Amino acid sequence: MANWKNLDTLASYKALESKKGSVDLKKEMSGENGAKRVKTYSVPMACGMAFNYAAKQVDDSIVDALGELAKEAELTEKFAELYNGAVINTGEKRLVLHQLTRGQLGTDVIADNVNKREFYVTQQNRIAEFANAVHAGKIANAAGEKFTTVVQIGIGGSDLGPRAMYLALENWAKTNGCFKMEAKFISNVDPDDAAGVLRTIDVAHSLFVLVSKSGTTLETLTNESFVKDTLAKAGLDASKHMIAVTSETSPLASSKDYLAAFFMDDYIGGRFSSCSAVGGAVLSLAFGPEVFAKFLAGAAEEDKLATNTDIRKNPAMLDALIGVYERNVLGYPCTAVLPYSQALSRFPAHLQQADMESNGKTVNRFGEPVNYVTGPVIFGEPGTNGQHSFYQLLHQGTDIIPLQFIGFRNNQAGSDVVIQGSTSQQKLCANVAAQIVAFACGKEDENLNKNFQGSRPSSIIVGDQLTPEALGALLSHFENKIMFQGFTWNVNSFDQEGVQLGKVLAKKVLAHETEGALKEYSDLLNI
Amino acid sequence: MANWKNLDTLASYKALESKKGSVDLKKEMSGENGAKRVKTYSVPMACGMAFNYAAKQVDDSIVDALGELAKEAELTEKFAELYNGAVINTGEKRLVLHQLTRGQLGTDVIADNVNKREFYVTQQNRIAEFANAVHAGKIANAAGEKFTTVVQIGIGGSDLGPRAMYLALENWAKTNGCFKMEAKFISNVDPDDAAGVLRTIDVAHSLFVLVSKSGTTLETLTNESFVKDTLAKAGLDASKHMIAVTSETSPLASSKDYLAAFFMDDYIGGRFSSCSAVGGAVLSLAFGPEVFAKFLAGAAEEDKLATNTDIRKNPAMLDALIGVYERNVLGYPCTAVLPYSQALSRFPAHLQQADMESNGKTVNRFGEPVNYVTGPVIFGEPGTNGQHSFYQLLHQGTDIIPLQFIGFRNNQAGSDVVIQGSTSQQKLCANVAAQIVAFACGKEDENLNKNFQGSRPSSIIVGDQLTPEALGALLSHFENKIMFQGFTWNVNSFDQEGVQLGKVLAKKVLAHETEGALKEYSDLLNI
Repeated sequence: MANWKNLDTLASYKALESKKGSVDLKKEMSGENGAKRVKTYSVPMACGMAFNYAAKQVDDSIVDALGELAKEAELTEKFAELYNGAVINTGEKRLVLHQLTRGQLGTDVIADNVNKREFYVTQQNRIAEFANAVHAGKIANAAGEKFTTVVQIGIGGSDLGPRAMYLALENWAKTNGCFKMEAKFISNVDPDDAAGVLRTIDVAHSLFVLVSKSGTTLETLTNESFVKDTLAKAGLDASKHMIAVTSETSPLASSKDYLAAFFMDDYIGGRFSSCSAVGGAVLSLAFGPEVFAKFLAGAAEEDKLATNTDIRKNPAMLDALIGVYERNVLGYPCTAVLPYSQALSRFPAHLQQADMESNGKTVNRFGEPVNYVTGPVIFGEPGTNGQHSFYQLLHQGTDIIPLQFIGFRNNQAGSDVVIQGSTSQQKLCANVAAQIVAFACGKEDENLNKNFQGSRPSSIIVGDQLTPEALGALLSHFENKIMFQGFTWNVNSFDQEGVQLGKVLAKKVLAHETEGALKEYSDLLNI
Repeated sequence: MANWKNLDTLASYKALESKKGSVDLKKEMSGENGAKRVKTYSVPMACGMAFNYAAKQVDDSIVDALGELAKEAELTEKFAELYNGAVINTGEKRLVLHQLTRGQLGTDVIADNVNKREFYVTQQNRIAEFANAVHAGKIANAAGEKFTTVVQIGIGGSDLGPRAMYLALENWAKTNGCFKMEAKFISNVDPDDAAGVLRTIDVAHSLFVLVSKSGTTLETLTNESFVKDTLAKAGLDASKHMIAVTSETSPLASSKDYLAAFFMDDYIGGRFSSCSAVGGAVLSLAFGPEVFAKFLAGAAEEDKLATNTDIRKNPAMLDALIGVYERNVLGYPCTAVLPYSQALSRFPAHLQQADMESNGKTVNRFGEPVNYVTGPVIFGEPGTNGQHSFYQLLHQGTDIIPLQFIGFRNNQAGSDVVIQGSTSQQKLCANVAAQIVAFACGKEDENLNKNFQGSRPSSIIVGDQLTPEALGALLSHFENKIMFQGFTWNVNSFDQEGVQLGKVLAKKVLAHETEGALKEYSDLLNI
């Protein structure tokens, strides 16, 4: 059994603190030394990708110290406990099994009297069979016509991850002849969300995927009713247009309101559910089960790297601990995620949930307050768009914001244009290369308004192309990074008690059981 | 002439600093006192909206102190200098005239030998005439058929603002019978962005709006070529499918490559250009010139409030100075923008640019370093989605993040559904009311994992409905808030020298004029 200790009780953390400010990034990244760093400060990832940390404020000595921290905090041992089925989610007393949806890292995990790996594979296979039948027209609408659109109804983890993954592969699938159905997403309880989506689709040829683990998520059930109303008004039988993704114990599991039901369980948190049936149904319907299987394979390959005890061979663990160094020792409050890939336009929003909901905690796994900062604010937009937006503050603002770049050598759609001697793809890649160096090295100018201080740290994940496998590997990398940071901060990354109070108070408002400020706000909003 | 001084040299700022921590928000917002605050801590805005700051860590004494700061920093005097045509953008030695696109606040502004208000109105009228001709089919494609889609090609301010405004009004326009043309946006130099958009539209019935003030923005010219290639391959004459929005001195202004050209000028920064031809062309084409005129009218009405010297009657100035108090005195690093309106899904991304690009500075207007923090990181997503995402950290994380809520009593599309005794709109509003109180008051629990500390500050802007007028007023509010914060920090909010270095280095990469780290990154990315 691993020992769970607060970060500030570890001797290796105190050793790390003593190295604060020992790396002059601007100097380190200059000249031949900078070139050497780019060549050597790189950890291989799955699918030929690499995590390059040359432009981080670390050197061999600090990475050694991070390795000591990983060892003392028993990070890979804790990961092994997790994938072998320990109750890692201590708050809710649950196993944490999302890695098991895509591969078997350790011993068989038996829970609820079943082999959980077999359970997840069974669901994946059931979805594949269903999706193939839809694509073949064997499952069709009342007029016997093929479904052309799939609409996911879900919120939070049932929305952000699957939506980000869909957008990430839409153009790839169109280019590679495996685009089967367009996908849309309804999430917000704002009725304008559902109304807006329903206005843009042909409901007679749409299949809706209702996603709620408990079967009781208010936003999702409300939007289901909204959709059912619309289907009824169009003279359509809703039960022939809707499937459910839920837990086996939920009221949706055996309801006749759905064409089919596919299952997840309590061991997969919403924000980690893209590889389960939550992502599997909509992605298999949109792109075919083979594409979804490749996505899982990429994630599984990357997961294996996260078991390495050597921090220089474990990109997620290294990324995680550099982040802890930046957050706790250097004191930076935020991290920006900047993919130079339009397909990853919503990937930062997904990571914002995955990271901030997991590690935005003030108590440790034992319910005791911690005396150090935990999860940072995560935000981001794709480059080059961000360059024309908030990069001004990143370059010349008063706070230092660590940056997480992502870039690919090739685009997805295959079409491009040459202007001023270079393709758009070359311009895109030139920009991300330029930004890393601009942030790290800066540029002196006598006019301080044009001066760049430099020493602003970044890392980059570089790959050949954003394929299904590469996307799976990327997702796994960040999920595991978040997990390792949670282990290091000694928090439980797998519950979210902070979302409960708002739910309770909203119910009171709707029941008109309010007083004081809450009553006044209710009146102000005319509820 | 107003005096431009650093914040930390002002006596009123020192007085403000002495009030640090004097408001116990949790206590203040409890019981009858909380109710009283919600009723009285409210400033009227245009279009029947209100800025309510009851849940901010301020009281009458602190608001008085902020009023003194506004007076000593001469904020309304500086605004008057701005709208009367002073060279407020000292870095680029330019006037700052975006408010003039929507109303005449002060004396006539003559620049470049013309009355600038007349110039902007002329452009607005020219766009209206053009849009009406397109809608009537008088300007049509080669086959004489009406254009059905408008595609904006632009990046940064030519993209984020117009895109956010389009999404904000799309459902309103559809509901109110003034939806004329669907709009799409191409921005990123990633060729997959243009390819992805072009795959979803019928180019034969599409009108493209090329937006570049200088006529030299590399991303935009590259995407123009991409579009022209596609049009040529479809056998279409690009010059009959494209208009330009640019400055009169740009190479695009009189080019035969465009059906028409509409003008902006150097006195309107990209991030403040939504009310100029940059937003005007696409929004007038999408919704008709009357809708765009209403949007401008709402902004003009709100601008007038920003001239009030009484901070309790000037919502933008009060919002700005509460922000300065939170940033500089209380030390909070970020601000989250949380609109409870799906239509405002990209409004936070627009504010992220407007705010971070304006005030993410380390030197004052005279080019001297400042000794205090300036613009915060801005991020956000619509509620209730955010509640199922990053709110965990906002409620229980180790950093305090001030929150800016926006809510409307009525939705746009008019369709709704009753579930468990309430409409979706009521649920939406109940949630924002509940969140404000949950953040402010918290909830004690012996299990610290379920404990909410409270005292997390927020404000809310409340309105009846997100109409064109209300949207204009919202935009004006935030533009003026940013301006007042810039005045207070004594920075120039209207240049962006921090974006230059990246451009210079990217050109070097494309010319293969690299060495050291930059060469290695170029090789890594296969450029």
